[in-house]
Amino acid sequence: MPDSVKLENLARLIVRCGVGLMPGQALVVSANLNDREFVRLVVAEAYRAGAKAVSVLYEDEENTRAKFLHGSDESMDFAPRWLVDGLVPAYLTDTASLRIGMTNPSLLADIDPAKVARASKAAAAVSKPLSDAIMSGYANWCVAPCASEAWAKHVFPDLAPAEAVERLWDVIFVTSRADQPDPIAAWTAHVQRVKSSMQWLNEQKFASLHFEGPGTDLVVGLADGHVWCGVESETKNGAVCSPNIPTEEVFTMPHADRVDGVVRSTKPLSLRGQVVDGIEVTFERGAVTSLRADKGEEVLRKLVETYEGARRLGEVALVPHSSPISQTGLLFYSTLFDENAACHIALGRAYSETMADFDALPREEQRARGANDSLIHVDWMIGSGEVSVTGLSATGERVPVMSAGEWVFDRVPAIL
Amino acid sequence: MPDSVKLENLARLIVRCGVGLMPGQALVVSANLNDREFVRLVVAEAYRAGAKAVSVLYEDEENTRAKFLHGSDESMDFAPRWLVDGLVPAYLTDTASLRIGMTNPSLLADIDPAKVARASKAAAAVSKPLSDAIMSGYANWCVAPCASEAWAKHVFPDLAPAEAVERLWDVIFVTSRADQPDPIAAWTAHVQRVKSSMQWLNEQKFASLHFEGPGTDLVVGLADGHVWCGVESETKNGAVCSPNIPTEEVFTMPHADRVDGVVRSTKPLSLRGQVVDGIEVTFERGAVTSLRADKGEEVLRKLVETYEGARRLGEVALVPHSSPISQTGLLFYSTLFDENAACHIALGRAYSETMADFDALPREEQRARGANDSLIHVDWMIGSGEVSVTGLSATGERVPVMSAGEWVFDRVPAIL
Repeated sequence: MPDSVKLENLARLIVRCGVGLMPGQALVVSANLNDREFVRLVVAEAYRAGAKAVSVLYEDEENTRAKFLHGSDESMDFAPRWLVDGLVPAYLTDTASLRIGMTNPSLLADIDPAKVARASKAAAAVSKPLSDAIMSGYANWCVAPCASEAWAKHVFPDLAPAEAVERLWDVIFVTSRADQPDPIAAWTAHVQRVKSSMQWLNEQKFASLHFEGPGTDLVVGLADGHVWCGVESETKNGAVCSPNIPTEEVFTMPHADRVDGVVRSTKPLSLRGQVVDGIEVTFERGAVTSLRADKGEEVLRKLVETYEGARRLGEVALVPHSSPISQTGLLFYSTLFDENAACHIALGRAYSETMADFDALPREEQRARGANDSLIHVDWMIGSGEVSVTGLSATGERVPVMSAGEWVFDRVPAIL
Repeated sequence: MPDSVKLENLARLIVRCGVGLMPGQALVVSANLNDREFVRLVVAEAYRAGAKAVSVLYEDEENTRAKFLHGSDESMDFAPRWLVDGLVPAYLTDTASLRIGMTNPSLLADIDPAKVARASKAAAAVSKPLSDAIMSGYANWCVAPCASEAWAKHVFPDLAPAEAVERLWDVIFVTSRADQPDPIAAWTAHVQRVKSSMQWLNEQKFASLHFEGPGTDLVVGLADGHVWCGVESETKNGAVCSPNIPTEEVFTMPHADRVDGVVRSTKPLSLRGQVVDGIEVTFERGAVTSLRADKGEEVLRKLVETYEGARRLGEVALVPHSSPISQTGLLFYSTLFDENAACHIALGRAYSETMADFDALPREEQRARGANDSLIHVDWMIGSGEVSVTGLSATGERVPVMSAGEWVFDRVPAIL
């Protein structure tokens, strides 16, 4: 069993810094049934923090599989609306949301991918207003990890299940700072460090970023009025939350029509229960014009071809190669971790907070300034210790941002 | 472990006869986390029956307790609305609902009853539209049992936990007919037998029922246009469901202003985690005018005094003393079973289906004809092998209905 003090630390960190729960708020938690012991610590902590109600929506993997094993053909294209109808108004008033734990990466590995794709599309269409509500920046929210056996088995395939779970908890404690004597102070200091990168990037007002590395020569134009975000959000209901625990990235909005060049993925991507690896993509004027992968090419191709907006980027993010998650050298099969191990880009929906005055702009103007929209948002890793990033100003001036995977501006005082 | 064939039988019976699920319907299941293994059988069966989606809302007892152990004073008077807001429209269109399992009777036994009462009141107020939607007769629904350890401990306090659970499963299998070679045929035959009692009672059009037994001399006036219901409902969405499995009762609507006399309970009642026993109540013109109990008097008194409509009756039900549930001689601490072991009455809300043309009548006319309304509906048992029931016609004629706890009309052919 993992250290109970560290588990309590993590639960406190998630509620106080992650969700940033305010006294008198209601909280909705979604989690896997298998993670219920840790969820209980979080629920108790949320009540101690003054929650007026904590509701937990548990999903049961067996029931998820039952649909694919026993469901009618019709059921593959249907997802119920009632949960979304109920939650959207709650998330647009004062209810905070928290997702705990990862999806089992191989839950549906033996199911016909065509069925899974149909069910995912139906679920994505129905839950779009829910993602929009959470992403609207109205209420505070957080996504946080829990070391399940199913997940640990993927990260440490050579260890016995109990040892794999324990090792995964250790990684979670270190990367979230729950192992520190004062985890909240340690998290707060980390937030300040990442914010200093954000501040520098926002001052530069780059027109684009140039990624260079093995198999990669990609210019990512940034949206007009783009804003660098990361680690912490001030939400419209007056809360301050860290939407991801752990987190290392700073991210902004690419221009949907100004991405050109070739790019090769640097880590595998876990997508709909399958691993996609060795991705090579060519972009022209924002759109994917060719795509191949060493492994799992079909599932990625299907995604890009099925969804509107899936051929263009919605996010570009920078993460130093020295980040604690990257330093583990592990592949987590979980975006929450893997996207914090390397610079990455995402196909699909852009985040409204990464464009100034987004909500005040008409839809056509949002799009004209570069905001992409889609039912999906899929991150994949393009950074490594061999990748450099250069900022290009509106006048074509080149400013080093990252060299060999590390911040350049960070090192300037040491060099001088 | 209980017999897996009987478990599968019960799951099939619940989906096919209980919910009466129609192909293409969505189903929402609510259940206790501890009952997840049986819930999985039901979910798989629902998909086999053609459900287009099955959603399970699990409640976790630990999280329910967390509110009372760690929650703020403010949280005791709050219940979230989002689930109700989402589900009501679903239940008023085509979504079927299923409740599996019982509440742990002693879950909150160590919690301050005043806190529990406040939280129950807040939850009842918020979920009233949900009960109304289910009770509206629009969509098919069912409440069915699952033998949890917490529940079995109460029914068989002297047995070891595993043995108690096994014994409880046996009782569930027998009373639901899941132990029969063809459970669906056996259930259908049972439904027909109960329907013949209903038909006879509906033909009588009694003005009132006179209950006589030890400590009981009570005349329960029946609502104008009352309808006897039981075992099966044809819902407005075209389904046929058995809202309770098991079930033995036939029930109708008392007149909220025409109940007079004294009545003594014949079985203990499990109410909000406490046992209420030896209840003695006097009614005058429909309202409770005095109330005492040997045990748990305070919790019943609090209920009657807190809720509008809780001083008057909303249901009267007849169950023969020879019913399989009654014959077990057990106290189940669960209304689903105990109300099918004896004739009973309920304080609080009346069921719309027990009055002809209810939905077409203005609210004042519903009330004038005798329909009671309330946030609560609490059944308690007044029948036994020593209680007789006589029907009184509008002209005062007395017709024997039950003698020594058994149907009289049933026996007529044998006597002739």
